[in-house]
Amino acid sequence: MNHTPPLFLTARWVIGPDGPMENGCVHIEDGRILGVCPRHEVPATLFEDAPNAEHRDLGEACIMPGLINAHCHAPMAILRGVADDMELLTWLEKGVWPLEKEFTREMTFLGAMLACAEMIASGITCFADMYVWSGEIARAVEAVGLRAVLSEGLLGFPTRTYGSVEESLALCRSFMEEFKNHPLIRFAPAPHTAFTTVSKQLVESYAMAGEFDAPWLIHAAETASENARVQELHGQRTIPFLDSLGCLGERSVLVHAVDLTDEEIEIIAARGAKVVHCPRSNWKLASGMAPVHGLAEAGVTVALGTDGAASNNTLDIFGEMRAAALGAKVREMDPTALHAPQALAMATQNGAATLRLPFSGTLAPGQPADLCVLNLAAPHLQPCHDPVSHAVYAAQGSDVCLTMVAGHVIYDHGAFLTLDYPALLDAGQEIAAHMREIMDRQERQRCEDTRPQDSD
Amino acid sequence: MNHTPPLFLTARWVIGPDGPMENGCVHIEDGRILGVCPRHEVPATLFEDAPNAEHRDLGEACIMPGLINAHCHAPMAILRGVADDMELLTWLEKGVWPLEKEFTREMTFLGAMLACAEMIASGITCFADMYVWSGEIARAVEAVGLRAVLSEGLLGFPTRTYGSVEESLALCRSFMEEFKNHPLIRFAPAPHTAFTTVSKQLVESYAMAGEFDAPWLIHAAETASENARVQELHGQRTIPFLDSLGCLGERSVLVHAVDLTDEEIEIIAARGAKVVHCPRSNWKLASGMAPVHGLAEAGVTVALGTDGAASNNTLDIFGEMRAAALGAKVREMDPTALHAPQALAMATQNGAATLRLPFSGTLAPGQPADLCVLNLAAPHLQPCHDPVSHAVYAAQGSDVCLTMVAGHVIYDHGAFLTLDYPALLDAGQEIAAHMREIMDRQERQRCEDTRPQDSD
Repeated sequence: MNHTPPLFLTARWVIGPDGPMENGCVHIEDGRILGVCPRHEVPATLFEDAPNAEHRDLGEACIMPGLINAHCHAPMAILRGVADDMELLTWLEKGVWPLEKEFTREMTFLGAMLACAEMIASGITCFADMYVWSGEIARAVEAVGLRAVLSEGLLGFPTRTYGSVEESLALCRSFMEEFKNHPLIRFAPAPHTAFTTVSKQLVESYAMAGEFDAPWLIHAAETASENARVQELHGQRTIPFLDSLGCLGERSVLVHAVDLTDEEIEIIAARGAKVVHCPRSNWKLASGMAPVHGLAEAGVTVALGTDGAASNNTLDIFGEMRAAALGAKVREMDPTALHAPQALAMATQNGAATLRLPFSGTLAPGQPADLCVLNLAAPHLQPCHDPVSHAVYAAQGSDVCLTMVAGHVIYDHGAFLTLDYPALLDAGQEIAAHMREIMDRQERQRCEDTRPQDSD
Repeated sequence: MNHTPPLFLTARWVIGPDGPMENGCVHIEDGRILGVCPRHEVPATLFEDAPNAEHRDLGEACIMPGLINAHCHAPMAILRGVADDMELLTWLEKGVWPLEKEFTREMTFLGAMLACAEMIASGITCFADMYVWSGEIARAVEAVGLRAVLSEGLLGFPTRTYGSVEESLALCRSFMEEFKNHPLIRFAPAPHTAFTTVSKQLVESYAMAGEFDAPWLIHAAETASENARVQELHGQRTIPFLDSLGCLGERSVLVHAVDLTDEEIEIIAARGAKVVHCPRSNWKLASGMAPVHGLAEAGVTVALGTDGAASNNTLDIFGEMRAAALGAKVREMDPTALHAPQALAMATQNGAATLRLPFSGTLAPGQPADLCVLNLAAPHLQPCHDPVSHAVYAAQGSDVCLTMVAGHVIYDHGAFLTLDYPALLDAGQEIAAHMREIMDRQERQRCEDTRPQDSD
């Protein structure tokens, strides 16, 4: 990080490491937070001492830690809204897979760029992703200046990027090697599920995560039918099966974790494994309501994820915070369950801990300057008695007016500073038109396939 | 309605009475929809024939029917976020009631103005409200040019506005008389609940609704404890109790309807009573998940409401559409339950039918020009394959860029055309500061009350 002049951001509210502060100031230098203090403590002489210092007042706004989206499939942004209200298998077989198999590298890159634009504009400063052609996703993330933990999903059968289990593991290792010193991007092993991989992939990739001190990402216990399938294949449900392989530990990141028994919650807690809760995707696909309150009570670190835009349909962590809190309350029939500060921690500190990021996810001194600013002037955020309540229960992704990663402003009041948004929009619409052609062709094909034979 | 020149609104999408149309045009005259047609069918010569006609292209956007918020307590906007994550009784006794009793008429008016600004900015063109000093709310609604069905809540004990049951009914009648010919506002009788009113209020107000062809609004079956209380007082749960009084019919609007048996769903359907579903309020207060899919399957007309901002914490019908759809899917463990077009109908047509509005809630010819426009250019709404999917699963209230009521544009790309928003913001913040003083004073009082006596 090159030396940059001191920056003082002031606003009506700052959510600092000790909670909300009215009329606060965040002092940033060289891409890091130097401190948070009341605005009146910023000495008037400061700007005389540091003539190149910049002071920017954000007015009726709240400066808060950048949000962490701990589970995504970024390129699926292209598939937003193509297939809703369907059974999981119909959704995959009719909606998602026939389109995904037409994806090119360039479409993967553009899908990732669209997803990055969406995340940047809603205050996300870091995300974890699982997809194929993840090198294209890295290219997008690098271009826009986000942080990310990326992965090439490991499957027990050939994909577009590898032909064998050995090749899948070699590809995973090569990405991890290539990015191990990258300032913003890391790679992690990510076996797809316990039933679409072979045990060798699970065990060896888990060891690889240890070797690189990386998280180990897996979709786990998403549905009752997943558990039934794993039981059929391996004689145990997902959590005990992973545990029997020695794959449950502090670096294990269990994405979804919906269909859990009380004993499985205890095992997860005992092993120190982490959970990524994706409430809106789980509800839309009718996977169930994850026992997130029970997990938290058992001491499990729970982060939040959006899942892909084909099953959510947005990448908005404000929406997930609210869904997590409301869902926990109604699931437990207890309005005190999962309170607002806890939901905010899930979207910030817990995300950082889950993804083993080398920072805390707060605006504490010494932390990287990853932050977002919520514009509070809109009527749905007025009046503001408590900005944490507003962040969780009232804000929308589009209330974000500024996003900063490692001290660099990448989004500022509607303007994307690291990407050409109008060009991206055009490219996205071209792809959408192309997608519709494919859908029409596939629909015609289906009609032809099912047309009765001419019997005259 | 005075004669106004023809207006042609065009956009990338129009959600017309027959579903979404790409590149559509809405023709508006004298405050009414004359028709929806493909953009290319608008004759090039038209503007020669009608030189005063206006054509406005909204670009990458979707013109859709105005949203109807079928249940609100508008002035509670002032209490947004003052008390979250609490048991219902704690929330009322410590959070809401001590502040509400300090409300003045002016605060009620300003709270309603803030709520109106919020609703206008998120595409709501009509709302139903239940509160005290409802004349102040009418004053706000009239000032901003929204439509509303207002009510002075009927309680079986004295309030700020009446001293006896007879006075409550007389006040209700006088409002209904006063507004019966108003172009945008109507009043309706609204007994608070079956356990906070006396039977005379229920029966007489129900008759009054019939006399004025108005809806009859009541909080009903919100929680299991409400049903237990009504059982204790009247020997029956809420729904059979209302039915026994003859108060369940086509004009009955049961707000919440969470704690229902299958038999009660059948009674509601058989009587033609309507339901207002307020999912996010119900979840936040841990009242439960209403059987909205079961109600819809039984043929009940279900509308959507936000409830007040103290228990939601926003007045955003886009959020309620999404919550209704996702909630129904996960409650029934069926991803096909409550599909997107159904959620949109709940927020438009069903709202109109529930509130007995003299129009359909669609953009059909002859209907009043009540509409909103969703800006689709933001990354979370790109690409757009289906604007109905986006309205339900991806849009946020703040994506609305234009709101029109009866042909009048009242909100246009961030500008409020019928209210002075900066002045309102200032007034709202003054009230918020005043609220904080009250809260601090009450907190000090509580501390003093519980301080141990000096025993030296």
